[in-house]
Amino acid sequence: MNDIEHDIPEIVINRLPLYVRTLNDLKLLNQTTVSSEHLGFLLQTTPAQIRKDFSHFGKFGKQGRGYNIDFLLDELRNILNLNKTWNTCVIGAGKLGQAVINYQGFKKEGYLIKVAFDISTKKLSNINDVEVRSISEMNQYIKELNIKIGIVTVPSADAQGVIDRLVQCGIKGILNYAPMKPMIPNNVSCMNIDPVLSLQSMSYYLDK
Amino acid sequence: MNDIEHDIPEIVINRLPLYVRTLNDLKLLNQTTVSSEHLGFLLQTTPAQIRKDFSHFGKFGKQGRGYNIDFLLDELRNILNLNKTWNTCVIGAGKLGQAVINYQGFKKEGYLIKVAFDISTKKLSNINDVEVRSISEMNQYIKELNIKIGIVTVPSADAQGVIDRLVQCGIKGILNYAPMKPMIPNNVSCMNIDPVLSLQSMSYYLDK
Repeated sequence: MNDIEHDIPEIVINRLPLYVRTLNDLKLLNQTTVSSEHLGFLLQTTPAQIRKDFSHFGKFGKQGRGYNIDFLLDELRNILNLNKTWNTCVIGAGKLGQAVINYQGFKKEGYLIKVAFDISTKKLSNINDVEVRSISEMNQYIKELNIKIGIVTVPSADAQGVIDRLVQCGIKGILNYAPMKPMIPNNVSCMNIDPVLSLQSMSYYLDK
Repeated sequence: MNDIEHDIPEIVINRLPLYVRTLNDLKLLNQTTVSSEHLGFLLQTTPAQIRKDFSHFGKFGKQGRGYNIDFLLDELRNILNLNKTWNTCVIGAGKLGQAVINYQGFKKEGYLIKVAFDISTKKLSNINDVEVRSISEMNQYIKELNIKIGIVTVPSADAQGVIDRLVQCGIKGILNYAPMKPMIPNNVSCMNIDPVLSLQSMSYYLDK
């Protein structure tokens, strides 16, 4: 693939995993090509939007022929670095942290939860074969286990402190479940999972 | 407020709750006004983006004077319908459903979990004072309890079926935790919470 732009908008990057998932679904149905129209229908967006998103990465198909699904999947997975596994840790072993550790969706996509940390000594037993260690051992374990992503499931009030510590440990990717918007350095990528923000956006449409 | 546009882009709507949260934080610090520059700094976006977002809703402030925080909060909360409470239900009483029901963030923002449903008869005991009923009673309870939002915490394979049933029951807002993109009618609003999609977007930045 040629002509990949630098500085691709984050909003475009954020849509690529959905394309990957949808193309995987089509592949399971034994389809080999897909038009931007059909992809748009499946993702409830316009064909023009899809063509524009792909145009950031060079050419993925020829006008009128549709996209080759295998080729497109391969390119998108490479762009997103999905063809490797990533070691992750969970910080916060309460109910939410336990649900995250037990969630089956991470491992099959290559995100391996290698260890969990908690401040409370009461929670220091294994959860689903994942060892829970004291947060004071975080730096050591992150380096030894080659952990690249921290999943933050502590209460809001503790989240910024935990995130600062993760950054000090050299973590470059943070998935934050705490309902707050953390301050992070420019060279660290952070995605916030916040169900209340989603509900609040949704409420806009509920009273029409 | 005058001149509110119709068909405001969803991406703009999705940012409004973050503005509300940040303005609330400033209010707690006894601030009464804020510039688009400072708001941009706090939200890690450009002042121009913030002014453009607000321009969809008419005028929120005068050039050079900054925004009045109380006024802005009031307008944004009205736009998003946040000045009322919404009754919700959770479908799926497994580990994830239990974490959602126990999560303290919903209630204080006006999203009340009134009842939960599960297909398994083994889970039909209360969780944190929320009654768990059989999914066969969903239609009746949704109407009786005036439930407007369904929170879907069932496994992926069951999610589309559950969402179809919620739509048949008249639900207009769905918060979906299952890692799939559901098909929904145009008059229903659905937000998907999918940690894997967030991790996959993040992976793009991890190998730079």
